[in-house]
Amino acid sequence: MTLQVEISGLGLHLPPTIETAEDLAPRIGRSAGWIRSRTGVNERRISHLDVAEMSADAGRQALGEGPPPDLLINCGLSPAQLIPDTAPFVLHALGLSGIPAWSIHATCLGFLVALQNATALLQTGAYGRILVVAAERGTMSRDLSDPGSAALIGDGAGAVLLTRPDQPHKGILAQRLITLPEGRALAELRGHGSRKPPGHPDTRPEDNLFRMDGPRIYKLARKAVDEVVAHVLSEAGLGVTDIDLVVPHQASGPALMVLSRMGFAEDRVVNCIGRFGNCIAASLPMTLALARQEGRLREGQKVLLLGTGAGVSVGAAVLQT
Amino acid sequence: MTLQVEISGLGLHLPPTIETAEDLAPRIGRSAGWIRSRTGVNERRISHLDVAEMSADAGRQALGEGPPPDLLINCGLSPAQLIPDTAPFVLHALGLSGIPAWSIHATCLGFLVALQNATALLQTGAYGRILVVAAERGTMSRDLSDPGSAALIGDGAGAVLLTRPDQPHKGILAQRLITLPEGRALAELRGHGSRKPPGHPDTRPEDNLFRMDGPRIYKLARKAVDEVVAHVLSEAGLGVTDIDLVVPHQASGPALMVLSRMGFAEDRVVNCIGRFGNCIAASLPMTLALARQEGRLREGQKVLLLGTGAGVSVGAAVLQT
Repeated sequence: MTLQVEISGLGLHLPPTIETAEDLAPRIGRSAGWIRSRTGVNERRISHLDVAEMSADAGRQALGEGPPPDLLINCGLSPAQLIPDTAPFVLHALGLSGIPAWSIHATCLGFLVALQNATALLQTGAYGRILVVAAERGTMSRDLSDPGSAALIGDGAGAVLLTRPDQPHKGILAQRLITLPEGRALAELRGHGSRKPPGHPDTRPEDNLFRMDGPRIYKLARKAVDEVVAHVLSEAGLGVTDIDLVVPHQASGPALMVLSRMGFAEDRVVNCIGRFGNCIAASLPMTLALARQEGRLREGQKVLLLGTGAGVSVGAAVLQT
Repeated sequence: MTLQVEISGLGLHLPPTIETAEDLAPRIGRSAGWIRSRTGVNERRISHLDVAEMSADAGRQALGEGPPPDLLINCGLSPAQLIPDTAPFVLHALGLSGIPAWSIHATCLGFLVALQNATALLQTGAYGRILVVAAERGTMSRDLSDPGSAALIGDGAGAVLLTRPDQPHKGILAQRLITLPEGRALAELRGHGSRKPPGHPDTRPEDNLFRMDGPRIYKLARKAVDEVVAHVLSEAGLGVTDIDLVVPHQASGPALMVLSRMGFAEDRVVNCIGRFGNCIAASLPMTLALARQEGRLREGQKVLLLGTGAGVSVGAAVLQT
């Protein structure tokens, strides 16, 4: 059964400040060549705006000249502050009030979760125009003593306006999400919560920095990615070559190369890790928005969205545009 | 149109340590009498377990002897840590793996948002048994120099198992949520995010404590509460006296008294602020679970769930049990 949904608008916020592999190399004690070959990231953006303003910029682009949304969902991982939730700050930055606004937190897969929730809410008729936003400033929390993860991260924001389509065949053909908590310690930022609270004597400075064991995540997630992709393709009645466009979470250069080994032709995979790095939960909506800007995301396509996130979580969806 | 959903299980985690108004009074420079009359809180619980373990305890009660859920939604406000999201930690504490798990953040209204999302997801057939959990340790972040808010907060956790009912008349008859970001500074904990990051020289200790301007929130929210309740009653075709049970967010003693002024008989309102204080996002599922334990939440009732949260957000739902 197709769950009707359409991408009616997209927005991409790119902070103007660029940090190249050459800029970062001396700070992490590795060469620019090492960064490029290990992470695939040539350069990334560094944001001086905070997350609400970043999301609002992307959100305004997605809304365009149309009417305001009737629901705002923020799916960025990093909050502006603990209370209130970030969504009311985005609402304020957009000049809106009186509609519901909340956040979804699912690490790098926030957009896939928001898409699933928004699509279900659209079916109930409760909402007609749902604006989904995500902004990340992961460069604030890089651990420069962990070069492999520090060289991956970039800042940016994306926004997607979801509506019910006029044509009933447009929408989600299949989707699947799973969480494997046995991998919960493989990508961590231990601070910002009740375990290592800010200002507590037991909280060390490194608890507020991001660390990741890429090889062990790869080992745990690889089989799950195969299973999840096989599941959604089978449910949608499609083969690998039926997919017109793959829009993946930009986890890393090597992680994106797995897609070719799974049979997806390189020219059908949107790959922007080299330009923007891994923008955490903003990565998927940014990649979608870029694909639209470049004319690669069009009407009548079968689009595979997929990714992995800390947790460890794995997810995929097939969208008929 | 009724959106079919049924509460198939409930769980209530009460930390064993009790802090009375007398215990707290000297720490905030007010008398126990002042605490009782201003906040309505006679005593509260203090948790020594962290949020994932608290949620898992409530979750196990909600699941009972039944099969595992096929989706876990955490709607507690306070994360265990920034990455991964808290939901995988709850999944792990429940001994589960391989189902999706994510979090919703909507300050004190997290449960109403989770209920709306879960109900919509149940309609799509994607899930059949959704476990919603929330745990809070707000007492860790009390600002003892702000007696009005410090005396309100308590710790606890609640869990609700949502399924599709056999009888099609059971479910959500009406619901409405709105956010008024003009009130975003009226209840704040500025730390834990990108604005006042942990360990940053500009982040002061008080940025990591909760502060609230109760009277100004009351002024902003009161009209919105009237509007939201009138809206859901009208949409459900019900009058104030048709509501069998009111399950409100336990914001404060005075806030709960507003319900009588709106026409809801006192014996139909579940009031546990005196025993547990304001348990933030855990408050609504805890109050539901208590109502079931006390035999007040039964089959065949029309139940009004409602509350206000930082943001400022206001929400209500009418549930036919």
